[in-house]
Amino acid sequence: MDAALKDPPAGDVESVMAEIGVRARSAADALANASPEAKTNALRAMAASIRAHEQDILAANARDMVIAEQNKRPSAFLDRLKLTPDRIESMARGVEDIAALDDPVGSVIAAWERPNGLKIERVRTPLGVIGIIYESRPNVTADAGALCLKSGNAVILRGGSESKHSADAIHACLAEGLRTAGLPEDAIQIVPTADRAAVGELLKGLGGTVDVIVPRGGKSLVGRVQAEARVPVFAHLEGICHLYVHGPADLEMAREIVVNAKMRRTGICGAAECLLVDRACAATHLKPLVEALIDAGCEVRGDTETQKADSRVVPAGEEDWGKEFLDAVIAVRVVDGLDAAIAHIARFGSSHTESIITDDEAAAAAFLARVNSAIVLHNASTQFADGGEFGMGAEIGIATGKMHARGPVGVEQLTSFKYVVHGAGQTRGD
Amino acid sequence: MDAALKDPPAGDVESVMAEIGVRARSAADALANASPEAKTNALRAMAASIRAHEQDILAANARDMVIAEQNKRPSAFLDRLKLTPDRIESMARGVEDIAALDDPVGSVIAAWERPNGLKIERVRTPLGVIGIIYESRPNVTADAGALCLKSGNAVILRGGSESKHSADAIHACLAEGLRTAGLPEDAIQIVPTADRAAVGELLKGLGGTVDVIVPRGGKSLVGRVQAEARVPVFAHLEGICHLYVHGPADLEMAREIVVNAKMRRTGICGAAECLLVDRACAATHLKPLVEALIDAGCEVRGDTETQKADSRVVPAGEEDWGKEFLDAVIAVRVVDGLDAAIAHIARFGSSHTESIITDDEAAAAAFLARVNSAIVLHNASTQFADGGEFGMGAEIGIATGKMHARGPVGVEQLTSFKYVVHGAGQTRGD
Repeated sequence: MDAALKDPPAGDVESVMAEIGVRARSAADALANASPEAKTNALRAMAASIRAHEQDILAANARDMVIAEQNKRPSAFLDRLKLTPDRIESMARGVEDIAALDDPVGSVIAAWERPNGLKIERVRTPLGVIGIIYESRPNVTADAGALCLKSGNAVILRGGSESKHSADAIHACLAEGLRTAGLPEDAIQIVPTADRAAVGELLKGLGGTVDVIVPRGGKSLVGRVQAEARVPVFAHLEGICHLYVHGPADLEMAREIVVNAKMRRTGICGAAECLLVDRACAATHLKPLVEALIDAGCEVRGDTETQKADSRVVPAGEEDWGKEFLDAVIAVRVVDGLDAAIAHIARFGSSHTESIITDDEAAAAAFLARVNSAIVLHNASTQFADGGEFGMGAEIGIATGKMHARGPVGVEQLTSFKYVVHGAGQTRGD
Repeated sequence: MDAALKDPPAGDVESVMAEIGVRARSAADALANASPEAKTNALRAMAASIRAHEQDILAANARDMVIAEQNKRPSAFLDRLKLTPDRIESMARGVEDIAALDDPVGSVIAAWERPNGLKIERVRTPLGVIGIIYESRPNVTADAGALCLKSGNAVILRGGSESKHSADAIHACLAEGLRTAGLPEDAIQIVPTADRAAVGELLKGLGGTVDVIVPRGGKSLVGRVQAEARVPVFAHLEGICHLYVHGPADLEMAREIVVNAKMRRTGICGAAECLLVDRACAATHLKPLVEALIDAGCEVRGDTETQKADSRVVPAGEEDWGKEFLDAVIAVRVVDGLDAAIAHIARFGSSHTESIITDDEAAAAAFLARVNSAIVLHNASTQFADGGEFGMGAEIGIATGKMHARGPVGVEQLTSFKYVVHGAGQTRGD
């Protein structure tokens, strides 16, 4: 076994993780009051270090790739794991983009004055310590580390064991950036052991040290984190996004949105997984929409009426409703009006992102108000469910919970706040 | 045993609570889209019903009082439990005040437009289902029920068993108000059983039904809720508020703030529990501040230097630092400058509310930035830690956690949000 992967003696995981927690808390205290310039300097130095160590990162990644190939990992896994000079450059640029974002810490979210002259401000503060649990994409190391630093948080990274060499090589560059800027190296720590018990410790919160956990990966990882975490989690388990083509929808607009929402990228959480076509326009819209999807290379699994629209439609089974295909497959059904569409989404959706396509403003308003998802759209593709597309800069993920962060989670969503009150000697009366 | 207090057969608590959860979720779905008018009408009808049923409420309260007196409850307990015509009127007025607040649901928190023409809005939505666990104050039934309704949430109330008759009588008025306005009665449910296992079920979240728990009561209740809850909790365990009189503090201002912060009400969470006097002004300020406190009827427990200031000072023990006296007692110590004051607060505080008194703006700014409490004040009394004083209208409590709600929790803090995106056919490019 490789030196970098050497585990601490069995039974020591708990103490190793506890030590990481103590260091993270101490770094978080220092970071909370670090200047915006220090953080920006650190991020720029990280990007420079990533570029300077391109060969080291590629060499580390090659070792991970050899093991993954020996383990006969599927090609999609290998593709996620593989780094190239282009991917390393884009990782460095990503860190620079985060450096260029406005620093959220200390910004005044709201301010008002009371009749007694007290001036009250709501001011952004860091959350504290963030735990990131991810899988095989080595670039998450840089993205997540940089986003947490920008938002003034210390971070504990726990990547997949099969990308460990790559992640460690990238982490070394982040540490160099922190040193260059005079910030504590413990601001970005990476769990040194591949022992899965370390994840369990992180999910328990390291004795009250971890403020929030962000899982980055597939459904089984997110599901485990959501089930076991004793601290808040920012995540979505699934992105079962729905499109609802309402009666007065413009057919051409509907066709473009439907094909884009399903086919632009089929593997992202904002990809549409189910198309609901209103009975009021099914006679005119169903067939062209289904044809456009199939012609674009999508498998259509339809209800009885959809099957009649095109002979290439596959019958949908009960399990196809509420299924996250993450592939060129979509479930299609005809629904009886707005209420039926909303009821279908409430039953089968995942509270992620849904879109209505219609020229009827009142119906759109009802859909936007009544559908209880993190993101609801009118006449736009569900693939816009993305922090970058929302103008937030980079995102660490998309959350479907209702507490604190919801929708894209960018640097602002990684902050808390406090109330700062400016007085002139006010005391409270009875 | 009284009919109203009759428990379901043992073992049935789980199913009783599960049924309450199902009804709450269904009511929450209906409430999320209730009009502001319907909610306002319901709240006004509740206030009217409380007034109309004054005699019923007093009779129910008399039964609770008899039992509490038989149980030899202390006088503070009896005072919290007791209702009078005045207290009932002020409860009705409190519900009307909440009716008059702006409806937070549907309000646009932020809005911006993207270069591609997408209009993005962040819109307030209800959280869903809120569980309130409280002790002997019957008025919490009305306050909490009204606040949750105003914010569009269904609520499950679990009051103390010794205030059960009073709470049930008040709850009947709330139910009448909901019926009058055509809103689902299940929007405000009260747990029918006094079995403590019901609290355990609520803390487990009733199968994903409960979105947040708000405990209202003493430290042991809040501690149990925080330790056992599997859903988010809005609360503070303790309010160990600090005052720091910095070197260049105006003595007269310091004296007024110190006495007010400690003595205006000693039993509230925003009452000061510890006074830190900077060595730079101890020679001039310590003695008059200690005298003012003692003359106002406060016991002062001081360090060696404070003991020298006035012969009436009691020596402070190690356990007096970080102690929530909730009484006319304060711990006083001399500290060596800003860093020492901040370090003392970090070690002994409870992240609730702290105030610096100084004429030095730079020192104030450093204190406000570095002290990591929900509320930090400059030249003002800690007793302003209150939603009403902040201009939020009524509050359901004060939270010291860093997630979602922090500081006073009013109707806005009882909401979540979603992103509403208005398009004109936009699809996402590569």
